[in-house]
Amino acid sequence: MTIETAIDNLRTLLGDRLTTLDAILDQHGQNEAYYPVTPPDAVAFPESTNEVSEIIKICASHACPVIAFGTGTSLEGHQLAIQGGICLDMSRMNAVLAVNAEDMDAVVQPGVTREQLNQDLRATGLFFPVDPGANASLGGMAATRASGTTAVRYGTMKENVMALEVVLADGTIIRTGTRARKSSAGYDLTKLIVGSEGTLGIITELTLRLQGQPEAISAATCRFPDIDAAVNTVIQTIQTGIPMARIELIDAMMVRGFNKMDGTTLPEAPHLFIEFHGSANAVAEQAEQFGEIAADFGGDDFKWTTKAEDRNALWKMRHNAFYAHKALSPSLRALATDICVPISRLAEAIDFAVEKSEALELTTTIIGHVGDGNFHCSLSFDPDDAIQFARVQDFMHQLARQAISLDGTITGEHGVGVGKMKYMQEEHGEALTVMRSIKRAMDPNNILNPGKILPSSNQ
Amino acid sequence: MTIETAIDNLRTLLGDRLTTLDAILDQHGQNEAYYPVTPPDAVAFPESTNEVSEIIKICASHACPVIAFGTGTSLEGHQLAIQGGICLDMSRMNAVLAVNAEDMDAVVQPGVTREQLNQDLRATGLFFPVDPGANASLGGMAATRASGTTAVRYGTMKENVMALEVVLADGTIIRTGTRARKSSAGYDLTKLIVGSEGTLGIITELTLRLQGQPEAISAATCRFPDIDAAVNTVIQTIQTGIPMARIELIDAMMVRGFNKMDGTTLPEAPHLFIEFHGSANAVAEQAEQFGEIAADFGGDDFKWTTKAEDRNALWKMRHNAFYAHKALSPSLRALATDICVPISRLAEAIDFAVEKSEALELTTTIIGHVGDGNFHCSLSFDPDDAIQFARVQDFMHQLARQAISLDGTITGEHGVGVGKMKYMQEEHGEALTVMRSIKRAMDPNNILNPGKILPSSNQ
Repeated sequence: MTIETAIDNLRTLLGDRLTTLDAILDQHGQNEAYYPVTPPDAVAFPESTNEVSEIIKICASHACPVIAFGTGTSLEGHQLAIQGGICLDMSRMNAVLAVNAEDMDAVVQPGVTREQLNQDLRATGLFFPVDPGANASLGGMAATRASGTTAVRYGTMKENVMALEVVLADGTIIRTGTRARKSSAGYDLTKLIVGSEGTLGIITELTLRLQGQPEAISAATCRFPDIDAAVNTVIQTIQTGIPMARIELIDAMMVRGFNKMDGTTLPEAPHLFIEFHGSANAVAEQAEQFGEIAADFGGDDFKWTTKAEDRNALWKMRHNAFYAHKALSPSLRALATDICVPISRLAEAIDFAVEKSEALELTTTIIGHVGDGNFHCSLSFDPDDAIQFARVQDFMHQLARQAISLDGTITGEHGVGVGKMKYMQEEHGEALTVMRSIKRAMDPNNILNPGKILPSSNQ
Repeated sequence: MTIETAIDNLRTLLGDRLTTLDAILDQHGQNEAYYPVTPPDAVAFPESTNEVSEIIKICASHACPVIAFGTGTSLEGHQLAIQGGICLDMSRMNAVLAVNAEDMDAVVQPGVTREQLNQDLRATGLFFPVDPGANASLGGMAATRASGTTAVRYGTMKENVMALEVVLADGTIIRTGTRARKSSAGYDLTKLIVGSEGTLGIITELTLRLQGQPEAISAATCRFPDIDAAVNTVIQTIQTGIPMARIELIDAMMVRGFNKMDGTTLPEAPHLFIEFHGSANAVAEQAEQFGEIAADFGGDDFKWTTKAEDRNALWKMRHNAFYAHKALSPSLRALATDICVPISRLAEAIDFAVEKSEALELTTTIIGHVGDGNFHCSLSFDPDDAIQFARVQDFMHQLARQAISLDGTITGEHGVGVGKMKYMQEEHGEALTVMRSIKRAMDPNNILNPGKILPSSNQ
């Protein structure tokens, strides 16, 4: 009844698709957060749902932890085998199983990445909109309830996962949801699994909602005198009903990072990066209306484009924000944290972050999915400087608690993982007890990604 | 440890807000489905969350069932006290607690109806979009995961409930979600409670997402040669990315009912009723594009309007469909059932319904939220004619199973209640076991709306 016995049995099942090679273990113990390398005891490479089920059954009978692994781009250490066990690398389950163009949905295996899916969809005139920046796996994106720049228009993974196939903690395979657009037939298990970070079941198939490629796309950058002006522009734009596809806030320090990395010459002031999707006329009208609202709040220096190559350059720059942040202090290590607040409190939350960062003498860049009230702070630190790292942790701590005090949440899209567990009690109060009871009901022996989401030693 | 003792204790707590008067019990035992009057043992009228909590604690200690009651407009018998117990009439908890215009959300008590909320919102330029037809309570709409004509544009209750306050089966009060637009902080308990039909907790407060009143609204009726032509028009319109706010399919028999009840002279053929929301230019452009697509499929006899009074008349007619159905056979009783399928299978599903109806010699009208693949059949029967009623049940039975076979769901928006429990196993398979385990974890003594959703005597 040990992990070692489980590994022996798994080797019989999987042959050389079960590995204990140090290099592979280390690779799966890496993380984009600030944790030390935390390798699992073995890595399994399943190729089918039935194989996942067999693996889980073996692990269940040996009380061996199982942690699903997508592309490893989590920012909160979701994939780390902190209690040891088997890493389930889903990268070989990477087939697009069906594209139902008339229904605007696709059925995929969890190892398919978002770029792979969109590549596959090119000829159909459809696309999958959720865009967290990283080319993450769709299974991982569902597990962490990811979102990104387009959520303001198209929603997060929560709104875009229609149905799932899931292997439970005892190896049972279930299907949740259907390809129908809506249902009132019982508890919404799909939405329960989305965001459960591999702690309630392993996702082995996803049915995803697709969108039609817009006829026209228009993007712009616009400079503001201060953060408040930019945020108020966004509030007014939303209230006016102008449908933004993307609206990203970039603070002055982040602009400096972009200029340094990309050789751009944007003025070092808060900016909005905006995109509109629709018919050519609608997009032109939306751009004009937005321009008027922005001008009312002191927005200036508009640069509009409808050319695909300019747009791609803009969003590539945006997606490389973390690397642009690193460019500001190349010798330091960087990490990113996120919170989400009601949009009316966003300026206050960002002001708070800027003040704290200055008080703690940290280099912080801020970038926000401002239409959702969600923003990220990237911070640099010297891993050998314990005092500086303590300041970084103090900053993240204060930011998370500020989010709660502003009627917001400790994470808008990065997830809980290891890093945010300590705030779950404060955010959820008694509701955390319900989460624990669901976990116990669905994974009584706590083998599925143990030590994540729920802050309790016996969870 | 009996219901009688619970009632005694509740009377001490509530005074005359606990009643056992036959007239009140009967009123709460009525239903718009086809069930006999099923009165509870008592009706409680709580006025606060704390009072709901105290009531539940008393009921919990006496193993007394508790059934929340909104406006009683459920179509599947959700509110019936089939195992006796206390009906919790939430109508006195009907305050709009906050309207946060900048954040476009509102906080309401569960007894607030959708029309009451929209009345309250008039001066703000905002509205709550979910529109199931009946002027239902928002607590009831959340509990049944209601939707309606505007779901194609604005989503269902699932997408529009941001946060909840819930009293659990032991009286504990929890809060799920926040006013932030999105979160990745743990299991999505809000979405678990939405659609749980009062079986996991009693909703005592809702935070709802609001929408801005569109600058312009344009509505139309359009005639089609057959159902397929109408459905293909909708598929093409969605794929083209034209954002419809409403798109309703009306079959020829339903048109006959409208003509009979409302004195209209619409040709007795399948119709689409359509509405667009947006800027004046956008709405005009969308109407034109839609007209071109519809014409390609033989759509004809367009009647467009942007006048509020004409639109209101159109949607009032649509919302009175059930009464228009009754007008076709005034001496008979009527019931309504709903299914939802992938839109590519919608024409097939409707054809199936028409064929079965004819084979069973039933009078059936069909109306559909066709942008979602969801449609309703209304059927008339003589309650004293057992053979005819058996045919109606046969029809509903075949329709539900057809929905499952077409990769759809047994109910798109009416919910499970009593009526659809028998299909839950077929639709969900092993996933039903997970629903049962969640129910057991959250309501171990099965006091919350027992005998609903989960088809098992010990659930």
